[in-house]
Amino acid sequence: MVPERIRSPWLRSPPGGRIRRYRLARGIAMPEIRQNIATREWVIIATERAKRPEEFVQEPKERAEDRPAFVANCPFCPGNEELDLERLRIPERGDWLVRVVHNRYPALQEDGARVRRFDGINSAISGVGYHEVVVESRRHNTSPATEEPTEVEQTLRAFQLRGLALREDARIEQIVYFKNHGASAGASLLHPHTQLLALPVVPYTIRARTEEARRYFDDQGVCVICRMREEEEQAQVRVVLDNPCFTAFVPYAAFSPFHLWIVPRRHAASFLTASPAEVHELSVVLRELLRRLYFGLNDPDYNYVIRSAPEQERDAEYLHWYVAIVPRVTRPAGFELGSGMFINPALPEASAQFLRTLTAP
Amino acid sequence: MVPERIRSPWLRSPPGGRIRRYRLARGIAMPEIRQNIATREWVIIATERAKRPEEFVQEPKERAEDRPAFVANCPFCPGNEELDLERLRIPERGDWLVRVVHNRYPALQEDGARVRRFDGINSAISGVGYHEVVVESRRHNTSPATEEPTEVEQTLRAFQLRGLALREDARIEQIVYFKNHGASAGASLLHPHTQLLALPVVPYTIRARTEEARRYFDDQGVCVICRMREEEEQAQVRVVLDNPCFTAFVPYAAFSPFHLWIVPRRHAASFLTASPAEVHELSVVLRELLRRLYFGLNDPDYNYVIRSAPEQERDAEYLHWYVAIVPRVTRPAGFELGSGMFINPALPEASAQFLRTLTAP
Repeated sequence: MVPERIRSPWLRSPPGGRIRRYRLARGIAMPEIRQNIATREWVIIATERAKRPEEFVQEPKERAEDRPAFVANCPFCPGNEELDLERLRIPERGDWLVRVVHNRYPALQEDGARVRRFDGINSAISGVGYHEVVVESRRHNTSPATEEPTEVEQTLRAFQLRGLALREDARIEQIVYFKNHGASAGASLLHPHTQLLALPVVPYTIRARTEEARRYFDDQGVCVICRMREEEEQAQVRVVLDNPCFTAFVPYAAFSPFHLWIVPRRHAASFLTASPAEVHELSVVLRELLRRLYFGLNDPDYNYVIRSAPEQERDAEYLHWYVAIVPRVTRPAGFELGSGMFINPALPEASAQFLRTLTAP
Repeated sequence: MVPERIRSPWLRSPPGGRIRRYRLARGIAMPEIRQNIATREWVIIATERAKRPEEFVQEPKERAEDRPAFVANCPFCPGNEELDLERLRIPERGDWLVRVVHNRYPALQEDGARVRRFDGINSAISGVGYHEVVVESRRHNTSPATEEPTEVEQTLRAFQLRGLALREDARIEQIVYFKNHGASAGASLLHPHTQLLALPVVPYTIRARTEEARRYFDDQGVCVICRMREEEEQAQVRVVLDNPCFTAFVPYAAFSPFHLWIVPRRHAASFLTASPAEVHELSVVLRELLRRLYFGLNDPDYNYVIRSAPEQERDAEYLHWYVAIVPRVTRPAGFELGSGMFINPALPEASAQFLRTLTAP
């Protein structure tokens, strides 16, 4: 996000005007710095620049449904399937609903040994692993918000089936499942798709969060994510929606407006252990939240990521998988780069309230 | 950056064509995952999508010098000074060269006690601290690349003078000095400026890096940043330029193309201990690098940040301050969000070679 705004028209409007500072209505008199108890990361909740949720509604732009449903040179449209790249199709016979393909220009290479290379004090590991793409729909002009429920569900199921297959490869330490929606979120192809990367190392950030979770469990005897979920369910201030299997809330130390966590009620370290019923319920919650963003905020760009345990700790009692959604309505800048700390110009409680009251058509 | 590119025109060009994969010329046959020995962070060097440095030259756009030198409603232009916000001006008499002002809409608030607040399992700290802006030049239509050398130097001196004043405040634990250049790097005002945030907490990422540096010192008996600098000076593969006080290089595990570190040769934890001669030499190196980016890559957006020790560890023997420059030529997406790990589509050695051979006018 932009940690600067010296002159801003809306801040000049009188308190009774169309636009006013949200804090006037919320009673938070000064900025505060909140800590996420699971990640230990601090976030500045910037009341001096606080905006009301409505102010994050995006400018009108071309939407997916304004585009054609089929594009002749799209590699993901039906009829253009590159069969040599295909890794999975659901269903196996007849018209596919979702497909998984090997990324033609992958970040990692499937073949080869996982070996260390030392170069003076520096060290590297061979870039072996998997980089796959889930084609979410036959239609070119959609996204999870406008897809059929079954398309969202089968996308998650495809993630799970591929994850279960790839974890069998002893070189794989961590699988990251994610979606880039919109150009500012890093998407370069319009046909709706998600991706997974199966890595031969555990990234530093994931290692650090794992250690923090283990420390919390050592100290408190409970999983920190379970604890957060229970607190949120009790407080009912930041919860947006829930169902028998999942609770979705804006974290207390959300690092941007409408940042969301979807936490499974059943304690489990790995997404790959989710039951078919849980995958179904997750798809319902995920689709509903993405619909609210799409219709309520005018289709903001976003990323979502499934945060699942490192494969060597996939049964660890101190880890708990969840899904994070991060709309790209603010822009990380030099301060975030230099500190790893975010400035959130929206109150998490106000973001949650806004999302709670939205109804998608 | 964009961890996906299924179809890309340049990858379809024949090897002898105008554009070809850089790896053909470099001999790196597969991707590799490199670790930064200081931060412990892994980066994927993606050879399948590797580009030559020239491919990161930006599209032509409006440059600062195309704009007027004075803008009547710019709060930073001479004549529009908001004196109640002023914290420093250099020189004190006559026409100022650089000024420091309190941010009118700061992320943190100057007045108030640093207090903890507990809310169930959650905790927060009052958002007290400083958010200041260094106006780098009297001219509206410039940036460090086209500023006078003295403007760049006095900007750094202003950082130092304000840092020395603010660290006297016992509430302050960490000062972050940074610049946002260009919209995609988070800049919202055109008049050239840099910023500092003085925080009442040490951000998690800085805490983690501090711990890694201490651990390295415990194990090896030397500062990890000194070690890196010496290795780079010896190898001369990733060094871009140096002078008696500083060495500038592309890190072995650079997380994006043209990512640069400027490391002081004299071991010191805090930027605030840099001598006047060192501040001068830093300004020379910084300006020269930013000129090469500006003229050689057609003014890419960028951030720079001065990474200085937490104030309680400002004399720690295991810490070493430095400056990082990150051009915004790629875009972090869901994978980076989910893993904290970057995909660099350029070889650090190739980035360094390109920057070495560039000459700014």
